[in-house]
Amino acid sequence: MKFGVVLFPSKKLQDVANSYRKRYDPHYSLIAPHLTVKEVFEASETEIEHIAAQLRQVAKDAKPFTLNVTKVSSFSPVNNVIYLKVEQKAELTALYNMLHEGQLKQPTEYTFIPHITIGQRLSDDEHLDVYSQLKLVDVAHEEVIDRFHLMYQLENDTWTVFETFRFGKE
Amino acid sequence: MKFGVVLFPSKKLQDVANSYRKRYDPHYSLIAPHLTVKEVFEASETEIEHIAAQLRQVAKDAKPFTLNVTKVSSFSPVNNVIYLKVEQKAELTALYNMLHEGQLKQPTEYTFIPHITIGQRLSDDEHLDVYSQLKLVDVAHEEVIDRFHLMYQLENDTWTVFETFRFGKE
Repeated sequence: MKFGVVLFPSKKLQDVANSYRKRYDPHYSLIAPHLTVKEVFEASETEIEHIAAQLRQVAKDAKPFTLNVTKVSSFSPVNNVIYLKVEQKAELTALYNMLHEGQLKQPTEYTFIPHITIGQRLSDDEHLDVYSQLKLVDVAHEEVIDRFHLMYQLENDTWTVFETFRFGKE
Repeated sequence: MKFGVVLFPSKKLQDVANSYRKRYDPHYSLIAPHLTVKEVFEASETEIEHIAAQLRQVAKDAKPFTLNVTKVSSFSPVNNVIYLKVEQKAELTALYNMLHEGQLKQPTEYTFIPHITIGQRLSDDEHLDVYSQLKLVDVAHEEVIDRFHLMYQLENDTWTVFETFRFGKE
């Protein structure tokens, strides 16, 4: 089974993100707007119980932090992904690091740039067009994040929650 | 905001349910296959923190139980909903009751019949046709349930997880 760990922002920010994703993100119907803190990894149903126990420990050591969305940005020319840029915070970096240490280690393709995707799989022309519009939009937003979610993927590619982990709790 | 409390069965059962929902359930893309244990209710973002605390207490008092799917059934003639029938268990009834007591009380339209919907909003003809086929299918399945999930609905009608509550934990 495929698993991943994400932060879900508040309804307010998810609704904003979805207003763009509906048009520009083919993953719109597969998962709610999210900030990925641990990329897809494979685990069996027995392995995941062990991993969940580790995530519980990470959550216990994690601290709530203020998530700040600053602007719309793009990973172009690496890829045509348009996203809500999230300010790098010490607590967020610490969380990411804890989710990739010890037995939670996994190969990572990119360095961690916290973001909430709102558009992807766009052609170069589409990307140029959409991004030139969206980068002018004021998307400034602030909220507190106090939990992460372990998700798994079904055969139809949609994602379901396995468990929520609240920061500072066991 | 609209909230609800559900049980998500294992990936295996969700994949089976989705193979039918894809064709017969317009809610297919809004939420993963689930067993509703507390119907939709309204709450503000501040109220929900208080409710979540109550749900935490319910989960603490709840006991893991074996979920048995016995057959495909239908709520017809009340409505044309086709579902995986889930055996009524003392632990499941107790969970439902705890989720509707005290401050968690809410008006309920139907008595609790545990089920996982696989088809709805079917015309009478469609319902007759689909149900006459599906009721012959062997869907017997057994698994342990040890958590429930508080979900909330976004403006596009999809559901996101707010928090997971594991039975017997605080």
